Amino acid sequence: MPTAAILGASGYAGQETLDRLLRHPDLEVVALGSDSLAGETAAALDVRLNGSLPRFVPNEDALAAGADVIFLCLSHERSAAVEPPDDAVVVDLSGAHRLADPAVAHRWYSVAPGAWSYGLPELFPPAGTLVANPGCYATAALLALVPLAGAVDPATVVVDAKSGVSGAGRELKSSSHAGFVLENFSPYAIGAHRHAPEIAQQLGFSVCFVPHLLPVRRGLLATCYVQTGEDARALLEDAYATSDLVRVLPEGVTPELARVQGTDAAEIGVFEDGATGTTIVVCALDNLGKGAAGQAVQNANLLLGLDESAGLRLSGVLV
Amino acid sequence: MPTAAILGASGYAGQETLDRLLRHPDLEVVALGSDSLAGETAAALDVRLNGSLPRFVPNEDALAAGADVIFLCLSHERSAAVEPPDDAVVVDLSGAHRLADPAVAHRWYSVAPGAWSYGLPELFPPAGTLVANPGCYATAALLALVPLAGAVDPATVVVDAKSGVSGAGRELKSSSHAGFVLENFSPYAIGAHRHAPEIAQQLGFSVCFVPHLLPVRRGLLATCYVQTGEDARALLEDAYATSDLVRVLPEGVTPELARVQGTDAAEIGVFEDGATGTTIVVCALDNLGKGAAGQAVQNANLLLGLDESAGLRLSGVLV
Amino acid sequence: MPTAAILGASGYAGQETLDRLLRHPDLEVVALGSDSLAGETAAALDVRLNGSLPRFVPNEDALAAGADVIFLCLSHERSAAVEPPDDAVVVDLSGAHRLADPAVAHRWYSVAPGAWSYGLPELFPPAGTLVANPGCYATAALLALVPLAGAVDPATVVVDAKSGVSGAGRELKSSSHAGFVLENFSPYAIGAHRHAPEIAQQLGFSVCFVPHLLPVRRGLLATCYVQTGEDARALLEDAYATSDLVRVLPEGVTPELARVQGTDAAEIGVFEDGATGTTIVVCALDNLGKGAAGQAVQNANLLLGLDESAGLRLSGVLV
Amino acid sequence: MPTAAILGASGYAGQETLDRLLRHPDLEVVALGSDSLAGETAAALDVRLNGSLPRFVPNEDALAAGADVIFLCLSHERSAAVEPPDDAVVVDLSGAHRLADPAVAHRWYSVAPGAWSYGLPELFPPAGTLVANPGCYATAALLALVPLAGAVDPATVVVDAKSGVSGAGRELKSSSHAGFVLENFSPYAIGAHRHAPEIAQQLGFSVCFVPHLLPVRRGLLATCYVQTGEDARALLEDAYATSDLVRVLPEGVTPELARVQGTDAAEIGVFEDGATGTTIVVCALDNLGKGAAGQAVQNANLLLGLDESAGLRLSGVLV
Repeated sequence: MPTAAILGASGYAGQETLDRLLRHPDLEVVALGSDSLAGETAAALDVRLNGSLPRFVPNEDALAAGADVIFLCLSHERSAAVEPPDDAVVVDLSGAHRLADPAVAHRWYSVAPGAWSYGLPELFPPAGTLVANPGCYATAALLALVPLAGAVDPATVVVDAKSGVSGAGRELKSSSHAGFVLENFSPYAIGAHRHAPEIAQQLGFSVCFVPHLLPVRRGLLATCYVQTGEDARALLEDAYATSDLVRVLPEGVTPELARVQGTDAAEIGVFEDGATGTTIVVCALDNLGKGAAGQAVQNANLLLGLDESAGLRLSGVLV
Repeated sequence: MPTAAILGASGYAGQETLDRLLRHPDLEVVALGSDSLAGETAAALDVRLNGSLPRFVPNEDALAAGADVIFLCLSHERSAAVEPPDDAVVVDLSGAHRLADPAVAHRWYSVAPGAWSYGLPELFPPAGTLVANPGCYATAALLALVPLAGAVDPATVVVDAKSGVSGAGRELKSSSHAGFVLENFSPYAIGAHRHAPEIAQQLGFSVCFVPHLLPVRRGLLATCYVQTGEDARALLEDAYATSDLVRVLPEGVTPELARVQGTDAAEIGVFEDGATGTTIVVCALDNLGKGAAGQAVQNANLLLGLDESAGLRLSGVLV
Repeated sequence: MPTAAILGASGYAGQETLDRLLRHPDLEVVALGSDSLAGETAAALDVRLNGSLPRFVPNEDALAAGADVIFLCLSHERSAAVEPPDDAVVVDLSGAHRLADPAVAHRWYSVAPGAWSYGLPELFPPAGTLVANPGCYATAALLALVPLAGAVDPATVVVDAKSGVSGAGRELKSSSHAGFVLENFSPYAIGAHRHAPEIAQQLGFSVCFVPHLLPVRRGLLATCYVQTGEDARALLEDAYATSDLVRVLPEGVTPELARVQGTDAAEIGVFEDGATGTTIVVCALDNLGKGAAGQAVQNANLLLGLDESAGLRLSGVLV
Repeated sequence: MPTAAILGASGYAGQETLDRLLRHPDLEVVALGSDSLAGETAAALDVRLNGSLPRFVPNEDALAAGADVIFLCLSHERSAAVEPPDDAVVVDLSGAHRLADPAVAHRWYSVAPGAWSYGLPELFPPAGTLVANPGCYATAALLALVPLAGAVDPATVVVDAKSGVSGAGRELKSSSHAGFVLENFSPYAIGAHRHAPEIAQQLGFSVCFVPHLLPVRRGLLATCYVQTGEDARALLEDAYATSDLVRVLPEGVTPELARVQGTDAAEIGVFEDGATGTTIVVCALDNLGKGAAGQAVQNANLLLGLDESAGLRLSGVLV
């Protein structure tokens, strides 16, 4: 059975990647990297994890463990410094390798791009052995907009996106303090978010992207506004007709966080505003699922020749 | 001292109007109308209310109580059926009298418009004795957009709005059930919300308006996207330079619900998206304050010749 | 393969029971009863449900569908009126058949008890073909207290319990309105909750039980206070040593909702208060999982001779 | 007019104290201390604060500013190191000076007690010029229990308390991360919380005290269980008959957070559990109001001979 290592296993993305691997029939976890938890048992991360998992080791050791697939769940600075082994599939969940243009990559991440493919399977299948896993906001925006990209007026596209707090990671910062988040709501990083150039790169043009912080633990919803003369619903239904993970909802049904939380699925709703003729495409997903760990495992599955959705959660609890 | 009556005093809007009147130095509450609580003391609504208030009476009796100002906090059907006394100022917090065009009023509310003025004091001062109090979403959108109306391309304006659950009233409905609202988020009534024609009427053109339901008790934030060649910040700062209730925030400061909850103030932030040249105007307010009861009392104050902000909450607790 | 019918499939308990059956390898859903949704496809309940499920039928028809196991997810009044078929296992998720003493049953539910066993598998295995599924609060309190029942001073036991809003069902009521629940917290039904006599019946003595409403969607936590001279931890660890669903946590680890939400597991923590010598036993579970649908399916599995945890969720997502 | 200085003005307690002073008719803020914000204008803390306030200065300078009353809103380590001026009233909102017994103070705070009085005005009026302001949990427990202290069996008193996240301060810690707090609930510091010895000191005996973390921004509710032969309601109503801030609710009305949030009031409900004869006293307050800043200003008012409730919020918004 192919083997897997996780670097940065104690962050949200790492822990969720582990969750998928624990339910994966064809991948064995052989190394859990975490500099802060090195030496501890897996139960130090979550009391539900038991003795069948290896102890945490330093990230460096996890990288050198000889795994067939390595998940980088590190900050982009740490990811940029990793020297990938020649014989492994590497999926980078950070932003370090997403931007291909050197000037753009330098501006937003202070890194130099390498030979990494961008892996958003339904739209941009991963290739080679090094995969940059998309950002959570970028995933939602691209799922909503790529099938329409040739049919819209680029100058007028707006992506108004809202994410739960886990999108900002487990790191302690004032904007993730519950005293700020609870009963609150606000936009942030307007005109200055790293997912904007990522969306532009994959879409072929810039859009106006504004993220907001929701008082929820997990889940992301992007409301996208476009002017198009084409049948957006038909284009989207066609694009995802064979997908197990991306559902275009029936007319009149709105995406909502509750149906995608804890899953690796995405929901898309398509609407028309009669008064202005604007088409509204709404995409909901779990920022830690299809927006991070679920997509990372999906990318790994594809490059390793495994079942695309092995280990993934297609649906959550119903209520 | 002028006297006031509230019809529908047991709903959210009525209760919040009462809150303002209780702190109002120049208005005396003489009648609390509520068909469901008629005969009960005010404490039946909220245990904090004490014996100095009159008992609840049927709405019909509150209307006939001879008050100088009457607040209609009823459903629009009930408001439309009210016969206003000749000698009183009447402020209607429902939507029944907001739309002036007969065809539009009929389509959205099944009512015929009468001689009601639209009262959003900073932009459209109330006139006469009958005032239609604006909708909460319309208030936020108009505060953000009216000062820019002559300087934007109407075809491209988007209003992406998000409101806490109290905006939907105290009535029991499945979309207000906490099992639906908590840890959830979704758009609703896309292309079909009554505040859209209200915005269009006051703005002079239609915009694309999409409301969303936030998992918070109170507070509303509208993110507005416009294309303009003018200095939006200067126009907005100029429009609200003398206002006690509407604050244009300094550059880089984003509006947030926490600073407006429980108040009758509104916050406006102005931003530019460098990648697309889009101007983003964000307005936050409390849907029950500036979006309902606070504005109603403000309108009443103006028509009665009282201090405009008497009884209002200019600021909340700081944290 | 044995077949299953759900009556009241459109409520929370019914929908969650369906969720377990959809993942059950050895039970086939043959009838979905719902008087309000009769005639509709399963997608009318949740858009994620697809065409492989039968359409909704009236509850009466679901009862008569000849299923091997019937789940009653009805109000207790409706459940009490059901005439169980002779040849089926029936699991009643309502409270109608939980109280065995005629006077007590009459006082709390206005029903007469029948030949129903009480099924809390780890403590009171179901017997016969008619099973009363325990209440959510009762499950938590009994899991915490039954192993200690012979070793505590009955007069001093306190159960301070807190539940998410889904515990009150999907029915619309003012105490489930999000405008009441959000950012709020309060006790309710003090000295008057139906789960108190249920706890007393199974424990053998009355305890002081006070429920509170938490501003969360799902999850229940009971903090139980007892005076005992015995080693409570040893008694509890012994009681659940072989259970897949009930975990006694290591010393110093506190139960929390996040680890049990969306699962059919329960967590128990045991603590000592040095200042007073009080033993504190904390039990957390999902009110819709181990507290309702999960336990119902567990009871059905046992009576049908299936794997006890078939269809259940032993663990949720990790973060 | 007497003058006031706040040390640690940028934390939650400091900011809320400032909020009360801004509405105080008889106290003038002359110094805002904050080592992290020294040199900044008040708007750096909250954009609603304007130019009439002094700039932030180092805490040391605020202490030396010659104010008539000094509020210490610092960590207990920092507070313990402050040398109080001879001629000022000093109110310490930290725990540094709450415990009078040297061994107890050393064990819980590693400090030596000084000549500080304990100021919980309704029960223990402040005296002298140095006042230790009570802890939030201690305030709720003492308000509920002190009037009954002579009439209960000490061995059986349980205080099950629940607090919003602002009780833990603005400091960044993993237990205040919104990803942990949202949709979650758990007890913490069982048998190890510093408010337990404080409650014991003022009550005269130890009680079993267990705090829990609620997913709300502000508000605290303590459910207290006692065995008593006396009329608890009468004792409590008598104790607070003349208080403007502490309300004993009518029979059958339960305290709830929503009515005390943003205020300096406390609500007390009294109930009997028929099955066991236990008396349940529930106290709700705002942990930042009556539980911190409100009580601090109340203590200062008393020692300065001002109106006891000057600057306080007796009630919040109604809904």
